[in-house]
Amino acid sequence: MTDGPIDLRSDTLTKPTPAMRRAMAEAEVGDDVYGEDPTVHELQDRVAGLFGKQAALFTPTGSMANLLAVAALVGPGQEVLCESRAHIVRAELGAHGAMTGITSRTWAHPDGQVDLAAIQDMYAPDMGPFFVPTAAVSVENTHNFAGGAVLPLSDLRALRGWADSVGCAIHLDGARIWNAHVATGTPLAAYGEVADVLAVCLSKGLGAPVGSLVVGSADAIAEARVRRKRLGGGMRQVGILAAAGLHALDHHIERLAEDHENAALIAEACGVDPASVATNIVVVDVPSAPATVEAARAEGVLIGAVGPRRVRLLTHLDVSRQDAEQAAKVLARVLGR
Amino acid sequence: MTDGPIDLRSDTLTKPTPAMRRAMAEAEVGDDVYGEDPTVHELQDRVAGLFGKQAALFTPTGSMANLLAVAALVGPGQEVLCESRAHIVRAELGAHGAMTGITSRTWAHPDGQVDLAAIQDMYAPDMGPFFVPTAAVSVENTHNFAGGAVLPLSDLRALRGWADSVGCAIHLDGARIWNAHVATGTPLAAYGEVADVLAVCLSKGLGAPVGSLVVGSADAIAEARVRRKRLGGGMRQVGILAAAGLHALDHHIERLAEDHENAALIAEACGVDPASVATNIVVVDVPSAPATVEAARAEGVLIGAVGPRRVRLLTHLDVSRQDAEQAAKVLARVLGR
Amino acid sequence: MTDGPIDLRSDTLTKPTPAMRRAMAEAEVGDDVYGEDPTVHELQDRVAGLFGKQAALFTPTGSMANLLAVAALVGPGQEVLCESRAHIVRAELGAHGAMTGITSRTWAHPDGQVDLAAIQDMYAPDMGPFFVPTAAVSVENTHNFAGGAVLPLSDLRALRGWADSVGCAIHLDGARIWNAHVATGTPLAAYGEVADVLAVCLSKGLGAPVGSLVVGSADAIAEARVRRKRLGGGMRQVGILAAAGLHALDHHIERLAEDHENAALIAEACGVDPASVATNIVVVDVPSAPATVEAARAEGVLIGAVGPRRVRLLTHLDVSRQDAEQAAKVLARVLGR
Amino acid sequence: MTDGPIDLRSDTLTKPTPAMRRAMAEAEVGDDVYGEDPTVHELQDRVAGLFGKQAALFTPTGSMANLLAVAALVGPGQEVLCESRAHIVRAELGAHGAMTGITSRTWAHPDGQVDLAAIQDMYAPDMGPFFVPTAAVSVENTHNFAGGAVLPLSDLRALRGWADSVGCAIHLDGARIWNAHVATGTPLAAYGEVADVLAVCLSKGLGAPVGSLVVGSADAIAEARVRRKRLGGGMRQVGILAAAGLHALDHHIERLAEDHENAALIAEACGVDPASVATNIVVVDVPSAPATVEAARAEGVLIGAVGPRRVRLLTHLDVSRQDAEQAAKVLARVLGR
Repeated sequence: MTDGPIDLRSDTLTKPTPAMRRAMAEAEVGDDVYGEDPTVHELQDRVAGLFGKQAALFTPTGSMANLLAVAALVGPGQEVLCESRAHIVRAELGAHGAMTGITSRTWAHPDGQVDLAAIQDMYAPDMGPFFVPTAAVSVENTHNFAGGAVLPLSDLRALRGWADSVGCAIHLDGARIWNAHVATGTPLAAYGEVADVLAVCLSKGLGAPVGSLVVGSADAIAEARVRRKRLGGGMRQVGILAAAGLHALDHHIERLAEDHENAALIAEACGVDPASVATNIVVVDVPSAPATVEAARAEGVLIGAVGPRRVRLLTHLDVSRQDAEQAAKVLARVLGR
Repeated sequence: MTDGPIDLRSDTLTKPTPAMRRAMAEAEVGDDVYGEDPTVHELQDRVAGLFGKQAALFTPTGSMANLLAVAALVGPGQEVLCESRAHIVRAELGAHGAMTGITSRTWAHPDGQVDLAAIQDMYAPDMGPFFVPTAAVSVENTHNFAGGAVLPLSDLRALRGWADSVGCAIHLDGARIWNAHVATGTPLAAYGEVADVLAVCLSKGLGAPVGSLVVGSADAIAEARVRRKRLGGGMRQVGILAAAGLHALDHHIERLAEDHENAALIAEACGVDPASVATNIVVVDVPSAPATVEAARAEGVLIGAVGPRRVRLLTHLDVSRQDAEQAAKVLARVLGR
Repeated sequence: MTDGPIDLRSDTLTKPTPAMRRAMAEAEVGDDVYGEDPTVHELQDRVAGLFGKQAALFTPTGSMANLLAVAALVGPGQEVLCESRAHIVRAELGAHGAMTGITSRTWAHPDGQVDLAAIQDMYAPDMGPFFVPTAAVSVENTHNFAGGAVLPLSDLRALRGWADSVGCAIHLDGARIWNAHVATGTPLAAYGEVADVLAVCLSKGLGAPVGSLVVGSADAIAEARVRRKRLGGGMRQVGILAAAGLHALDHHIERLAEDHENAALIAEACGVDPASVATNIVVVDVPSAPATVEAARAEGVLIGAVGPRRVRLLTHLDVSRQDAEQAAKVLARVLGR
Repeated sequence: MTDGPIDLRSDTLTKPTPAMRRAMAEAEVGDDVYGEDPTVHELQDRVAGLFGKQAALFTPTGSMANLLAVAALVGPGQEVLCESRAHIVRAELGAHGAMTGITSRTWAHPDGQVDLAAIQDMYAPDMGPFFVPTAAVSVENTHNFAGGAVLPLSDLRALRGWADSVGCAIHLDGARIWNAHVATGTPLAAYGEVADVLAVCLSKGLGAPVGSLVVGSADAIAEARVRRKRLGGGMRQVGILAAAGLHALDHHIERLAEDHENAALIAEACGVDPASVATNIVVVDVPSAPATVEAARAEGVLIGAVGPRRVRLLTHLDVSRQDAEQAAKVLARVLGR
């Protein structure tokens, strides 16, 4: 149990553990702009291997990983299709339009799921230079703004099958792919199979302080490497951060199951059906989000408002079972359950 | 009846009439980059007045008019919501993302209509600098890729009411607003009331050879004027073209009713319910679009394929009643009705 | 002699002659977005032929022609080198950076001339993905902001020779290439030989109301055609304007010699060495530009301020010999010579 | 003396010292996207204070710091003036044009110095919306591609005085401002006075593994913070890296004098006038750059080719006096001096 408040605002808030700090302090490094950082290479190779891809590229943030990943598949004047609340269109400051110049169109699904019929309806083949062709479909797994929903592998495979039949690429925003993997037992490589390029994050559930990766073919990653430099994301002795990522891959994947259990526990206390909580994110409808946030804060539990009458809380590495039980107790009281 | 084939591929194909040519030949002109072309001023003032707006700006194309109109309302990092087959996301080479850097999200409606519930669901208020706020909703009336569908004024007014309540702007892609006006009797000023900025076109149903206008507040148009120059759209003695527009406004609006009647006639011959043909566009599902296009062509009727099993035809100024009757006969035969 | 003031502010101010208006009124037209306007084809083929190139593309403005021409040679992350006062960096609203995303570096020459040593010094070969390679050198002939200066063919040929040796392309901003041609007798095809892509204008000295062309290889022009559509420059029955261009090519090239003589006459009256006035632009240093502009205006001569103590005047199709003599008299008096 | 080769290719190659690693391992951290990382705050406040500015912002790279710094001063359609070999136009993948959409013009100086007369000649005041106004002048101190040249404070002050008189901003690319400070004794705050926004780097001479900062007014930094997020540069528990920066500020500034002495030593051995070596960069003209690089490598000294007949070498934290003496011996032999 931590000293201060129990902080459920985000799973990006985790602080490096002592063991992770040791790994960082001892990391062998080099200048990664010159391609000479052995720890970065090790991390990139490891992650590429986990997803059955040829190559991977370290980036300072998940936003940059998504930006590079989509740009590897979709050029200016082309379009990406995604769910209406996907992180790539709702967050990231609109960088995909503003920086890459692409068009996006969306389908809406209450649980953030793949809607293949809607996608097929929207899909635009290349009809000459005046129309906007669909270059890629983007899916997010787990889906952040749909409450950590998991996309079933069967749906992703059906999407892949159709996409192959029409020659369309697939981007997987896997910021929380580790949570999907642990929640369902789906091998990471199976996710790698259904996507051309993935963005995966080390600094959410996995607990690394900084870092994401783009994962894909050697060609896509070589391109992404150049674009990363243009965005100002080509760091030097960044093996320090890569070491944290390697440590996280070794020690922090399987433990995500605890976060999921803790989320279910808290969900139940909040009167949310635990069956609806697929991973580590709980969304609760309340009479007044600001009032609920404030009442919880007064009792040592930090949560976030994501709408005027909706709050959100996330479990993570820095929330112990005991913390979760305490948070559940506090929230039940605050919500009057 | 024209000499060559009856050309139903597009209503952009119309050629200037002798009277329109005379108007162009006699137009008083000046350098419009210096703001000194009286005919351009007259056209801009006239069109602004028709829609009850402060100002208007002549542009070489409808694409540029839409690009400037949306850019007047939506900046990089902000989003526009529109129907899934809207011209601004499906055509125009993706310029809104590529040139203005905006994000788009879409709702899908089989008839291209406003879906206020879907819009309200998608609407994103300004939640700080990391999210993408909804700056505008774009509607297209008539809706090109939805077969010339008309958006009822009541729906537009409901959208306007809600948009005002949340502080969201409205863009109206009125490339064929004249057809909506004639088909429903709705005053143009009523359309002006429901939109902040409109793009309207002179070279489709109205039969001018070249030209569109952006219509809105004096501030929005002043901004659009600068952006037009950056896009390379600030022409010189362009009163020549504006004169064609003025002539079209005088002589070619009310006659659109004939195009609508002709479209209904052809629709019926094609086995399409004429009630579903709101204006001058007829969409027909066929076993093979290329085969149908070719068979019609062989009999002197040009139509367009808009999908592997879908053809489209448009009536316009250069299609007389006699032409329409002939085309109906040919198409009925080709389609085996 | 015109009725109103003698307008020397710009050679873009010319109004179409009666004969040119007749040519426009009688032009055969078609939908040029479909590639079906015969007059546009005729103009494009004619201009391509004049410069010995494979193809040409009509654009609504010289700014768009330059934007497309440079974009055909220089991509985002690459650079163009040009003289410090070149129109492409000083005017056009910074579109080359803002729309195409290129880098520019400049050399400064008092007369806007090619400085091959400076160019060779700046030239950056491709040194891998992190540096900005020089993709093209841009030259402007005649050079607008250098007072209509002509670039000698020998200099252009020396540049071409060196550029070929290093694999660098050349863009020629030929908005007033006709003036250079007439002033020096250099065949237009010789200018075509020294440039990969040219932008040439019909609406300055040639007196057409609207229009420019990009001229180059078939591939470059095909690319420019797509980009023109994205910018909103793909007009419909634009043969109306192309007809004016064809008329101008037939009737208004050789007469530019008169403009040059008139400019020399006015220059002399203003105390400017006529030898320094290569074509139709006269730049005069004065104690106060606003005062001079106003004093000339009061006597029926319009000129422009291009700095706090510098005025500029241009002769053109709408300035007769008599106008020039009258303007010379007025300006001599105003300037106290 | 290091075990492997003596690596003089770049001062970005330094590896964190044991003490720096300890500082990183023990850093207090938080989520900096939430503004909750105390070590980042400490670093930002410290650096802002050093330069006498209100605020600073940590970035993953010097490229991003420059991109944000220039974007804070220059918008799309505006221009920055800089020396012809400035890092912002020669390197950084052309991001300033490609990402911010600005125009650049350049003056050339053999030693990368400020040429105030050339700047004044080029300077373009705001003349209405069709021209490109000069929004900022950018200077680089020390100047990388001019061999680590120092810009004298008197020149910067003269530039500042003139810039103030016309209302033009100044950007200082201070990637190696620490070297200029140590070489001349100029207080950092004096550099802060002559610039509106600075970019300074921790991972070159200062020896931190990763990180730069943008430094300026509170408003400029608030804007840069939003743009940083859009570029994907908003990292989480980045206090780990900020701790290295704080350590570097405490321990690695004054020692740059040793790098400068070592550079002078090596320069002399290479036959380069040591008076021409202002800081830690030595540029040597050789008969064949590749041959020289290879010959030095064979004897355990790594240097870089920066042209077909030019090599470059940099001294830094990981090059001891003994290393420098050894490198001098090797290079003298290789160069036949």
